[in-house]
Amino acid sequence: MKRVGKTIVFDSPPYVLSSAGIVGKKEGEGPLGLFFDKIINDGYFGEKTWEKAESRFLRTAIDEALKKASLKYHDIDVLLSGDLLNQCCASTFACVDMSIPFLGLFGACSTMAEGLVIGSVLVESGAVGKAICSASSHYCSAERQFRFPLGYGAQRAPTAQWTTTAAGAFILGYDSTQSSKICITHALIGTPCDLGIKDAANMGAAMAPSAYNSLRQFFADTNTTFGDYDIVATGDLGQVGFDMVTELFLRDGVTELANYNDCGLLIFDIDKQDVHAGGSGCGCSASVGASYIMHRLRNGDWKKAVLASTGALMSPTSAQQGSNIVGVTHIVSFEVRA
Amino acid sequence: MKRVGKTIVFDSPPYVLSSAGIVGKKEGEGPLGLFFDKIINDGYFGEKTWEKAESRFLRTAIDEALKKASLKYHDIDVLLSGDLLNQCCASTFACVDMSIPFLGLFGACSTMAEGLVIGSVLVESGAVGKAICSASSHYCSAERQFRFPLGYGAQRAPTAQWTTTAAGAFILGYDSTQSSKICITHALIGTPCDLGIKDAANMGAAMAPSAYNSLRQFFADTNTTFGDYDIVATGDLGQVGFDMVTELFLRDGVTELANYNDCGLLIFDIDKQDVHAGGSGCGCSASVGASYIMHRLRNGDWKKAVLASTGALMSPTSAQQGSNIVGVTHIVSFEVRA
Repeated sequence: MKRVGKTIVFDSPPYVLSSAGIVGKKEGEGPLGLFFDKIINDGYFGEKTWEKAESRFLRTAIDEALKKASLKYHDIDVLLSGDLLNQCCASTFACVDMSIPFLGLFGACSTMAEGLVIGSVLVESGAVGKAICSASSHYCSAERQFRFPLGYGAQRAPTAQWTTTAAGAFILGYDSTQSSKICITHALIGTPCDLGIKDAANMGAAMAPSAYNSLRQFFADTNTTFGDYDIVATGDLGQVGFDMVTELFLRDGVTELANYNDCGLLIFDIDKQDVHAGGSGCGCSASVGASYIMHRLRNGDWKKAVLASTGALMSPTSAQQGSNIVGVTHIVSFEVRA
Repeated sequence: MKRVGKTIVFDSPPYVLSSAGIVGKKEGEGPLGLFFDKIINDGYFGEKTWEKAESRFLRTAIDEALKKASLKYHDIDVLLSGDLLNQCCASTFACVDMSIPFLGLFGACSTMAEGLVIGSVLVESGAVGKAICSASSHYCSAERQFRFPLGYGAQRAPTAQWTTTAAGAFILGYDSTQSSKICITHALIGTPCDLGIKDAANMGAAMAPSAYNSLRQFFADTNTTFGDYDIVATGDLGQVGFDMVTELFLRDGVTELANYNDCGLLIFDIDKQDVHAGGSGCGCSASVGASYIMHRLRNGDWKKAVLASTGALMSPTSAQQGSNIVGVTHIVSFEVRA
């Protein structure tokens, strides 16, 4: 592997051996419903708490991805995972019985791409044979942790987004049977960006500058632009952040923006589903990436895709102490190879 | 790089270009006081909150390590960091103004070794040139988050440990001037281990089985044992966990345990400093590793050292919901090369 600018270029790109996205009822009713591997209508997923339910969504995504690749836990050398819960507990309790070496990540909603960046390097370098990269979020566990207990029925701001109840998992490795054609060709580690946003009901605005910075760097390093990919998807900027990124590129004279999209806008019909500015959460880009984007690449509709997962690095404590909300955006690009 | 068993073996081991450990007053009064780069007597470190103070400890460790290597922020390609605060906020706000690409980690108190494992792979593979790996903890921010507000003056159990107010940072890379002789030769990603411990006042017992499992695997893969290293240091098992690991190896017939130690026992004089079972926290193995262990290797006292940072994966919410405390132990080995 080599570096061009800040971008990691894989000489022997690791393959996506399989992937799976599992979502809740509301996400299943959205425009991408048909693409998800499983839709779980019960928010508790048979568990006693939302936190345990989130672990089960994540575990189900991992199990589903393994099943599709005919792999077992013992075939996997490392599991990279993260989520929004304090101390990343959804990931811990999803994987505790799997006996797979585990690297816990915290990238807020950028975690899916963060895991894919590190996982790709681990696989291409030979440090591991096969890696699972995964992430999850749950509307109910996130709301009560970051905002208000759901029972309060607090009113949401128009700029607020709806944390997706969703999980996604990718299995990376080399495929001796050549049954997988999708590989990860490039990766970029994002740099935290703080433009002074403090409004926790406007995460799109907090993350948009980092998305713009990371994408601009990535395009410069790879000498590409939006039109060179079938989709360039940010993670969960929602309508507010999406419009900001669009405006920033337009100011640069980049007008070919037809292939730019956002997983938070793809997963919900924001006019009909009462989700205000769109979807969010680690599970948003994880499930849309692992299900919808991989499906379009796998069936030949698309040849190249960029996933730029966007994260807002903050906690209720940091917000209460007056700290800004810091954005970060990690990027991976996928390509179908014959 | 290659894999032997579950251990990553570096063909071109990355070097520790520099390292620094910064601690609070109590840690500075302990047996290792002379080895730390800075001792900060003010628990607030001039900030308004303990959380912001923790960020400043971490930032100071990073800045100190950079100064020792005559490097600037823009010389660094990635910063890996994590801590115990919700959503790893100590790390976020330590690094937000550095403009360094950032990978947030959550491994609880195993974070220092987790960062060194990933950082070493990133450097050896060529994905990045230079990496900073860092971690922090703060007694006051941890107590109020995980246990009780300090103002309650709650009584502590004899098995409880004292979260260190400390941060450590390592800079990894290749040294064209050959001024650094310490390299990272091996790394092992730990597997989560749950033996049913639920007592948050006995983290040593929760983490000890994972330390034993990881060390046993590492020794088998590298065909070594305790006696092959000048020190094999677990992260923060304290007296209870240390005794358990000792007993488990004795049962296996391993009796050469003189070089086994624990950073949580090294950093405090547990008979005199009223810390009950010993030190803990991400900052424990981070500061002891970055200061004391690196010092002994650098000045020629030691040739080989193993750092096995131990983590307890849990949150107050998971504990309240009756979940067990899951242990994980990541390992790196250091060697002085001529």
